[in-house]
Amino acid sequence: MSKVLDKTNTPKDLKILSRNELVQLCGEIRQQMLLRLSMTGGHVGSNLAVIEATVALHYVFNSPVDKIIFDVSHQCYTHKLLTGRKAAYTDPAEFASVSGFTNPVESEYDIFSIGHTSTAISLACGMAKGRDVKGESHNVIAVVGDGALSGGEAFEGLNNAAALGSNIILIVNDNDMSIAENHGGLYQNLRMLRETDGKAPCNLFRALGFDYFFVRDGNDLNEIADVLENVKDTDHPVIIHMCTVKGKGYLSAELDRENWHYMGPFDIDTGKLKCEAAPVETYEALTAVYLADKMRKDPTVTAITAGTPKVLGFEEELRKQFPKQFLDVGIAEGHAVAFASGIAKAGAKPVFGVSSSFLQRTYDQLSSDLALNKSPAVILVFFAGISGGSQTHMGVFDISLAANIPGIIYLAPTCKEEYFSMLEWGLNQQEHPVIIRVPGVETVSRDAALLSDYGYPAKYEIVEHGEAVAILALGKFFELGEKVREKLEEDHGIHATLINPRYASAVDKEMLNALPGYGHEMVVTLEDGVIDGGFGEKIARFYGTSSIKVLNFGAKKEFVNHVAVEEQYFRYRLTPEQIVSDILEEIRI
Amino acid sequence: MSKVLDKTNTPKDLKILSRNELVQLCGEIRQQMLLRLSMTGGHVGSNLAVIEATVALHYVFNSPVDKIIFDVSHQCYTHKLLTGRKAAYTDPAEFASVSGFTNPVESEYDIFSIGHTSTAISLACGMAKGRDVKGESHNVIAVVGDGALSGGEAFEGLNNAAALGSNIILIVNDNDMSIAENHGGLYQNLRMLRETDGKAPCNLFRALGFDYFFVRDGNDLNEIADVLENVKDTDHPVIIHMCTVKGKGYLSAELDRENWHYMGPFDIDTGKLKCEAAPVETYEALTAVYLADKMRKDPTVTAITAGTPKVLGFEEELRKQFPKQFLDVGIAEGHAVAFASGIAKAGAKPVFGVSSSFLQRTYDQLSSDLALNKSPAVILVFFAGISGGSQTHMGVFDISLAANIPGIIYLAPTCKEEYFSMLEWGLNQQEHPVIIRVPGVETVSRDAALLSDYGYPAKYEIVEHGEAVAILALGKFFELGEKVREKLEEDHGIHATLINPRYASAVDKEMLNALPGYGHEMVVTLEDGVIDGGFGEKIARFYGTSSIKVLNFGAKKEFVNHVAVEEQYFRYRLTPEQIVSDILEEIRI
Repeated sequence: MSKVLDKTNTPKDLKILSRNELVQLCGEIRQQMLLRLSMTGGHVGSNLAVIEATVALHYVFNSPVDKIIFDVSHQCYTHKLLTGRKAAYTDPAEFASVSGFTNPVESEYDIFSIGHTSTAISLACGMAKGRDVKGESHNVIAVVGDGALSGGEAFEGLNNAAALGSNIILIVNDNDMSIAENHGGLYQNLRMLRETDGKAPCNLFRALGFDYFFVRDGNDLNEIADVLENVKDTDHPVIIHMCTVKGKGYLSAELDRENWHYMGPFDIDTGKLKCEAAPVETYEALTAVYLADKMRKDPTVTAITAGTPKVLGFEEELRKQFPKQFLDVGIAEGHAVAFASGIAKAGAKPVFGVSSSFLQRTYDQLSSDLALNKSPAVILVFFAGISGGSQTHMGVFDISLAANIPGIIYLAPTCKEEYFSMLEWGLNQQEHPVIIRVPGVETVSRDAALLSDYGYPAKYEIVEHGEAVAILALGKFFELGEKVREKLEEDHGIHATLINPRYASAVDKEMLNALPGYGHEMVVTLEDGVIDGGFGEKIARFYGTSSIKVLNFGAKKEFVNHVAVEEQYFRYRLTPEQIVSDILEEIRI
Repeated sequence: MSKVLDKTNTPKDLKILSRNELVQLCGEIRQQMLLRLSMTGGHVGSNLAVIEATVALHYVFNSPVDKIIFDVSHQCYTHKLLTGRKAAYTDPAEFASVSGFTNPVESEYDIFSIGHTSTAISLACGMAKGRDVKGESHNVIAVVGDGALSGGEAFEGLNNAAALGSNIILIVNDNDMSIAENHGGLYQNLRMLRETDGKAPCNLFRALGFDYFFVRDGNDLNEIADVLENVKDTDHPVIIHMCTVKGKGYLSAELDRENWHYMGPFDIDTGKLKCEAAPVETYEALTAVYLADKMRKDPTVTAITAGTPKVLGFEEELRKQFPKQFLDVGIAEGHAVAFASGIAKAGAKPVFGVSSSFLQRTYDQLSSDLALNKSPAVILVFFAGISGGSQTHMGVFDISLAANIPGIIYLAPTCKEEYFSMLEWGLNQQEHPVIIRVPGVETVSRDAALLSDYGYPAKYEIVEHGEAVAILALGKFFELGEKVREKLEEDHGIHATLINPRYASAVDKEMLNALPGYGHEMVVTLEDGVIDGGFGEKIARFYGTSSIKVLNFGAKKEFVNHVAVEEQYFRYRLTPEQIVSDILEEIRI
């Protein structure tokens, strides 16, 4: 039998297929997707869940005239496959030609570059309003997962979409799962609606004013296509509450939905990872061990996550041990910070763990709820720094955004000893909001000079006393500082000073003032983040009127999409050779 | 008849009163509050609305053991009056002894310093969880307005409060009004609940899992007190949906709820402002005129507000002229930015106007929804800079938070001619997200050199060619720069260069590189914002390795509560005399 997939390249190819052929196509896509996922890894669960819905969307609607916006967009693989990018899913040589998220640079079928959760409804509202004021008449559709509904922006979007007064079609893809299990009152309502086939009178979406449609089996092509045909060209806001199965069609993924949310390359037959990562000691794992120990000893120690418990190293089994102290608030980072502030104000000890990229969802809460109230909560920022990932999930902006907020002590440990020293202090003090920038994934050990108090005034650590050049190497880039120092010494006979600044949010005035007296003519700052608004600029300002020269190294202020870390280091002149060269250029003058 | 108010100083004084006396007390407080408001101005509408509820809260609950958290906290006057601060509302000499918002520095009855909307539910969740892990058993109560429910953090809080599994009492104070009228689907549900005395089966709060109580008349002391007594010490999450009348008991305020949200000192008999502000030309008013003209000519021009239409100068009458183009999304700044991004992507022309203090509620949307997608929306930031207001509403952080996001062109005009030149360009270009920092309230006119293109690379304006010292005076502080230049010239014979940088987000490398060649040995930056992460530090970094000295002037990184602007200028060495003195100090060396 010839494969339908072979003759399917763009949405228009779907229009001529029969319903049976569409069903067949879904099966072929699932088989192919699974094959591809097994080779490249990726977001397995969500993509297997929305194959039928995506085929139905492109069959019923007229994209790219009709606008389809995928929330988070990690579930966009079938969409990409159907919109001129099939080779990226069928030809191993082309696998790297697309990213895992929608991106207008790739295709006119992708409306936005999206990676953060809960944004699509608001963006769709804007597309719909823009359409209306331009006098156009196409459909605007957003696909949003149940897990994403816990985010405040999603609710702000729902509230406004409901009042739009014109065409907007929101598909709530309910697979009864966030990255981990869902948390919060709204999921009780989704469950009630699922259990009553959408007929429960108390309906969150109807309460907001939406015309509500229920799809019992969103993995049934015919059922979802019928509803889509029904609502196409509607003149008012519509919600389609569609139930799907995360990992649909692949038993391992269906049975263990959390671990199959995202998976590396795996063996299809066994469901086992092809290459188990070499067992390294990670900060996440050590953090979980540390916090679990604290939580056992002290019931007021609480660990908070916003839908990503594994970031804190808490696997499902460990979470179950702390039902009252391990707190998953759903994908709601803003709430998590305010929640932590409240817990701290009540005299208990909250620790909120969050990825750098998502810390930026909490600026106002960091400022208004936390810092202004001097709440002694601890926030651990994971995955900060230059990475080779998607432009949607960069981890280089956290210093600039958080370290300039008054009263927040932003610490940047250089190694695990210092990390836990800072965490221990942060947990036990009662005066300051403390953020700790976890220095990477794999742990580093060093004989750091630890403090018993990391409050202000900032106290930097001189690791190596030298002269001429002082290297201020922040956090994870301390290792880079060591390399630069060695290279200056070995290749150029310059015995530089090496300093661990410890603090991203403040300068050690005493030490900086002393440096010129000790024969330094240049200070170099190294930070694993955007220079603009970051740590180094504080040093440049400090020395603004002195004769000390300051050279700031870090990332450029730009969005970077899937560029290897080493390549970025090279572009930003962050290799030891380049840094040494730039230093020599300046001190020779 | 002796006044009950005379013998009422703390909540315990309420406990011994009869219900009738409590009712009498409410009347006395209303009379006194009105008198005080007429003399000092303040949030009239909300405070008159919650007198009965606040008396009932302190009568029924045992504060400060029981925790009462007021959202926004602009409605806290009766709370303050009842908690040891009566003189601040009865003795004119003491009026200034309290702020208009809760503040733990003032009283143990104030749990948090709060001024931004939609945060109290999340904070209350934290207080409740902290109580639970500590094994305590008091009540945690949050009072939140209907207008605040449109904010995402409120929904994130509701979602989690509903799942808390222990005591939390949320009072939704529904006066059917935000600052202006409400917008969004949820208000349809509130209306339906009001119209059915809370009996409508489709109930947003029940959908989320709350035990729901309806109070038909929240200005009836007995009705609200009965419900509070009923839910006191509850073991599960409760919502009290309480209807009140904004401005209750003062006819002018009841009839014109928007204008009486906040009012200056007024004549009680006539309801007229005591001293009409001298008619000055404001940027808000000019902006409204400009946008209205554009909107009439081009249906794709849209103006967006997040619940504060007057910030854009749009009074009710003007709003009515543009039902399709003037878009109030409710208090939901994050959504507003994403919405604007969507509108721009659809090819229409959105302008979002927002106060500096609330811009910080949009960091992730500025980055992910807007900048990453290069959406050519325009954001106007009002009320930026040092002010004498509450620490909860500071306007000095916007440069640091927004100008360091890649791709956002952050412009700082110095006068109205430049402001509208930038706005015109921003509206007509199709490439960049543009933020414009409105330079104050009262307009300034200047013969500025205007550009036809404010895109990158940044092009600073040399206003006065001089030597030795170059003053980079950003935005509103351009006038300060002029004064410093004059003073250097007149008092010290130094003919300084004066530069209008135009851009807060980028340096004009060409010009900065040329300055040393033209005999400059010092560059001074002036910005009306926090120096940390701001404009000046970019200049300090730029000259890090040159012999040019850089002096950065601006606000210190700190929260400041009601300190006169002139006093802050003095503290931060921002008077022309201090700046000149600091310059001379450095160039004499």
